[in-house]
Amino acid sequence: MKVFVFRLGHRYVRDDRTTTHLFLAARALGADAAVYCGQRDAELEKALRKVNESWGGTFEVVYAKDWRLGLQEYKDSGLEVVHLTMYGLPIKEVMEKIRSSSKDKLIIVGGAKVPKEVYLLADWNVSVTSQPHSEVSALSVFLHEFFRGEELLRSFNGGKLRILPQERGKQVLRKSAS
Amino acid sequence: MKVFVFRLGHRYVRDDRTTTHLFLAARALGADAAVYCGQRDAELEKALRKVNESWGGTFEVVYAKDWRLGLQEYKDSGLEVVHLTMYGLPIKEVMEKIRSSSKDKLIIVGGAKVPKEVYLLADWNVSVTSQPHSEVSALSVFLHEFFRGEELLRSFNGGKLRILPQERGKQVLRKSAS
Repeated sequence: MKVFVFRLGHRYVRDDRTTTHLFLAARALGADAAVYCGQRDAELEKALRKVNESWGGTFEVVYAKDWRLGLQEYKDSGLEVVHLTMYGLPIKEVMEKIRSSSKDKLIIVGGAKVPKEVYLLADWNVSVTSQPHSEVSALSVFLHEFFRGEELLRSFNGGKLRILPQERGKQVLRKSAS
Repeated sequence: MKVFVFRLGHRYVRDDRTTTHLFLAARALGADAAVYCGQRDAELEKALRKVNESWGGTFEVVYAKDWRLGLQEYKDSGLEVVHLTMYGLPIKEVMEKIRSSSKDKLIIVGGAKVPKEVYLLADWNVSVTSQPHSEVSALSVFLHEFFRGEELLRSFNGGKLRILPQERGKQVLRKSAS
């Protein structure tokens, strides 16, 4: 099963760091790709490409010029759409049902003002607490629950660097180019 | 047991949104307070105060002028210190031991360059994946694991607004000032 993250409302410059955090979290916690819309952001795409080069894996960043068309295209291609929103149904109540379908998933992560049509298009509107927090936080807890924590054991093939976990300090292995 | 988040290396303006996200996540996922250092940031403090006013709870933002002194003060007062770092021991390996102590916890969340002394001062250096991701993401997964997901059921006393979870759309209850 593939998991895509769809970032609504990326505002160039203003949201640079938040979207980078969001996509790094998506990659680290087992998503296969992330989609962003609005203005093209070469820096964002480059940042994630460089992380793959160094740390492995095949995480992709996809650009969709028009969010509405992009979203509809994913929906039409048969993905199940989960929209993370503080107004939605509690994650604990719906996760089992969401996991029970083997369809690929599109996880929509919005910002402050998400148009009503997104709530209607989504198969699931899901809240990770009904308190205001952060789209990075909501996505992280969602993926962690969705993958039952097994995403933390996943290995990333390729790349040049690998961390050897330490009680104190840092140890990074540099793979030889064999 | 109290849980504090200690944000290392907040850079005024550049990190504004990231630190706000971090503190909102800390609050929503059950931490009692968050500490930041460096330049005083009235906007950050105000943002969190307003969230409490609207949504309840007693989450506090604390300012420590000097991170080194601030950190040492918490350590000396007997808190157990957990430092979240991609270089540390896997969360799955150490969480049970961390949870087994009833001491208050200080969760240090750093940025790119954390001084070695932080690794030495910490009782636990913990990684939420050894892949680069986001401090917001690492903190969120850590708290979610630490509280065993029960933080999502927590209620926030006071406040003016409460969300009534919906399958589609938004419903916000405004409490009467009784």
